[in-house]
Amino acid sequence: MSMDTQVFREDVRESDIAVVREIVMATKMFYPHEADVAAELVEERLRRGPASGYFFVFAELAGDVAGYSCYGPIACTTHSYDLFWIAVRPDCQGRGLGRRLLGFSERRIAEAGGRRIYVETSGRPLYHPTRAFYEHCAYTREATLKDFYALGDDKAVYVKVVG
Amino acid sequence: MSMDTQVFREDVRESDIAVVREIVMATKMFYPHEADVAAELVEERLRRGPASGYFFVFAELAGDVAGYSCYGPIACTTHSYDLFWIAVRPDCQGRGLGRRLLGFSERRIAEAGGRRIYVETSGRPLYHPTRAFYEHCAYTREATLKDFYALGDDKAVYVKVVG
Repeated sequence: MSMDTQVFREDVRESDIAVVREIVMATKMFYPHEADVAAELVEERLRRGPASGYFFVFAELAGDVAGYSCYGPIACTTHSYDLFWIAVRPDCQGRGLGRRLLGFSERRIAEAGGRRIYVETSGRPLYHPTRAFYEHCAYTREATLKDFYALGDDKAVYVKVVG
Repeated sequence: MSMDTQVFREDVRESDIAVVREIVMATKMFYPHEADVAAELVEERLRRGPASGYFFVFAELAGDVAGYSCYGPIACTTHSYDLFWIAVRPDCQGRGLGRRLLGFSERRIAEAGGRRIYVETSGRPLYHPTRAFYEHCAYTREATLKDFYALGDDKAVYVKVVG
């Protein structure tokens, strides 16, 4: 499949609830209850629109969703955004799709007035590639919260200044 | 007014929407849009019950709400809780009410299985008493996110291990 067919779609559809759950589970990086949370953000967006505070980017290859990101402004801040989710189907990984998806999301955040983008991830070894991905994309580790997710499972907080 | 009359109430009423907004504004520590967020958490709790993930403690003196706290479990963690809000009316401060309110909330969190309690506050000078309060109550500063709330307005993250 050629990369030429890649498009970024930002409108959110009912079918994305199942698509998001499927992609998140396919990565084998998340627990089922985490996939539920990911799907709930799509539902919340469909219910409340932009007022939900959740914005999505779907990367489509020949009409199929190969990956997606979800971000939004952080309440009570002037210019900080959370990148809540970014995931790419395993069979579409290794071609720079995640990096382009992240870059596109960052530009949209900057256009909306965002200046600081925060991502949170686990300190567990399973997430080493995730942390390496963010570092490769110029995110800086700013904090580590010990045992945050569970005993022995720290939270790593990364930030990137944009715009 | 004697401290003997102090009671902690955990059920949430329609009237608490206005009460919470009033207390938060009375402290002169928050912007109006932050008071809106505080009130919205009460509305969300009234709408969805415990499933909202928001739990409240109202400290009443002779039937009037003198202060309140709002806490809840953090999604996708096994034993971490956020203390979202704690505020005491200025005319009721200085008598240890905030400390007892916090202590009561901490015990409820521990009873519910919580082990780590996180509080976030601003690094601005205005919040020096707030940070001193948490430190006095055995919270440890675990992270600082630079310019998080706004340029020159850092976020300080405190944690206390309980239970």
